[in-house]
Amino acid sequence: MSIFSEDALIQHYFTQAANSPFALGLQDDAACMAIPNGFELVITCDTLVEGVHFFVSDPAATIAQKALRVNLSDLAAKGAQPYGFVLSLAMPVECFDPAWLAPFSAALCADAQYFNCPLLGGDTVKTLGPFTITITAFGLVPQGKMVKRTTAKAGDILYVSGTIGDAALGLKLHPHPAFEPRRTIPQPRVELAPILQHYATAALDISDGFAGDCMKMLAFAGAGLTIACEDVPLSTAAREMVMQDSQLWPTILAGGDDYELLFTIAPQHEAEFLAVAKQLPCGVQRLGVLLAGAPVQFTLHTTPLALTRMSYSHL
Amino acid sequence: MSIFSEDALIQHYFTQAANSPFALGLQDDAACMAIPNGFELVITCDTLVEGVHFFVSDPAATIAQKALRVNLSDLAAKGAQPYGFVLSLAMPVECFDPAWLAPFSAALCADAQYFNCPLLGGDTVKTLGPFTITITAFGLVPQGKMVKRTTAKAGDILYVSGTIGDAALGLKLHPHPAFEPRRTIPQPRVELAPILQHYATAALDISDGFAGDCMKMLAFAGAGLTIACEDVPLSTAAREMVMQDSQLWPTILAGGDDYELLFTIAPQHEAEFLAVAKQLPCGVQRLGVLLAGAPVQFTLHTTPLALTRMSYSHL
Repeated sequence: MSIFSEDALIQHYFTQAANSPFALGLQDDAACMAIPNGFELVITCDTLVEGVHFFVSDPAATIAQKALRVNLSDLAAKGAQPYGFVLSLAMPVECFDPAWLAPFSAALCADAQYFNCPLLGGDTVKTLGPFTITITAFGLVPQGKMVKRTTAKAGDILYVSGTIGDAALGLKLHPHPAFEPRRTIPQPRVELAPILQHYATAALDISDGFAGDCMKMLAFAGAGLTIACEDVPLSTAAREMVMQDSQLWPTILAGGDDYELLFTIAPQHEAEFLAVAKQLPCGVQRLGVLLAGAPVQFTLHTTPLALTRMSYSHL
Repeated sequence: MSIFSEDALIQHYFTQAANSPFALGLQDDAACMAIPNGFELVITCDTLVEGVHFFVSDPAATIAQKALRVNLSDLAAKGAQPYGFVLSLAMPVECFDPAWLAPFSAALCADAQYFNCPLLGGDTVKTLGPFTITITAFGLVPQGKMVKRTTAKAGDILYVSGTIGDAALGLKLHPHPAFEPRRTIPQPRVELAPILQHYATAALDISDGFAGDCMKMLAFAGAGLTIACEDVPLSTAAREMVMQDSQLWPTILAGGDDYELLFTIAPQHEAEFLAVAKQLPCGVQRLGVLLAGAPVQFTLHTTPLALTRMSYSHL
């Protein structure tokens, strides 16, 4: 079926990304990882399916980048420093082709090096269906310092990194040159991780939709807030587009695939947090104070905005 | 598309298997794992695809068991004690059905408890293709004690656990009542793990085929041996069948899915190893001494056996 055996394929395309003693040169059936004393391992897992999470026509390179980066985004939200990952590829026959595998593995290697997150192992199998890629990624946090999704409290202040909506607009208006970069290549906010570890009371990364992920996090706080659409940070392109067509707000707020970080800061730490966060290129936007018992609502020009759905549903 | 949101589905079907503080009640985007001082984490990953690794008609319960157990088999080969796993499910619409999910999750929970290997997290997505399940499993070994695939040496003695060929005969003769149990539900030799950790110079689990996996391990030793088919341990049913039809030997030797352990013992530790191993219900079979520079060959009634392939190819 293929010009490669599984072992030969792994050695040829993937050992370059496996620049870690834990990977054992990808020659064994398992990786062997040491954890520094005083640290814990944060573990996250995300699967991308062709036709669901990316287009069949997307370049092999951006598929590899998205698969790793959505996991790095989860690690960043938990305040964790990337430490390595394992990769499962379920590949249709047409992917067993150097023209596909070479750019896929080159992009994966480049990202593994750039984010200092080596490949440690994995599995390669054939599938009779769509290309399916699962990455389990590992990050380090000092003991007890993982930032949880469930620990926001009334009185905390809600913040979001970067800008919202470009990826969802990129999907809705596909292909649109202004939004393709964010749709295809998420930018995990790894630079925020150490800051969240110090200052955040809770955090998650926005994958399913800004509105829905706000609700998910704040449900645990028993608190909510009213977010003015005018306060939602947008790219210049998204702002211009939604100024012309306010019907795009639901796409921006509930479309998902943003991979920005949503987090809460206790009021007594806000000044110190802002002094540090101001230096970040991605920027952070204050959305408001959490009120006990309040719902999560959005307003546009002070009028409540009715959203028929809050996020993308995987099921 | 479904009566469940992703969160509701996870809470309903999978929290029971997540009986570990590391899993954080499956309410976060990540697990947070502590590793005891002096130990290392062994990490393995296996993917099963419907139509490739199991039949569409296989029961949901045995699919769950196979997915976890093939990973536990890898951990056992590395001498590691199960410590937890993460689960990725790419599910076609028809699997979002209590009639399918209930037996799947019940079997997974039962195995997680039986093998003391809790579910720590994962991902659930829809697919337009075949059901695809990826498990990344974690095991503990004392520092430096992971048993490698690559460290056998000439002079070591080759051993195999249990019996070979039932799963491959089960696939070839499907459905055959004598072989269905081993085809559908692997028996990971977790009881061998601590013994291998003490005595084995190298080990792997036989997933692709006994002959091919022998060659894989012994290639690193620069050594080989001649294995008499008469010394290959078989179940009673397999022995009766191959006595009637010797054409079944290639299926037995190269068919794979055995999940027995293949390992080498240094001669000076063999007596001590045997004293311990004798107490195991699965049994171990001595296959011979590794000779430097020799090939791996099989004989039947002292005549060399020509195998056109050595193992199942995934690609």
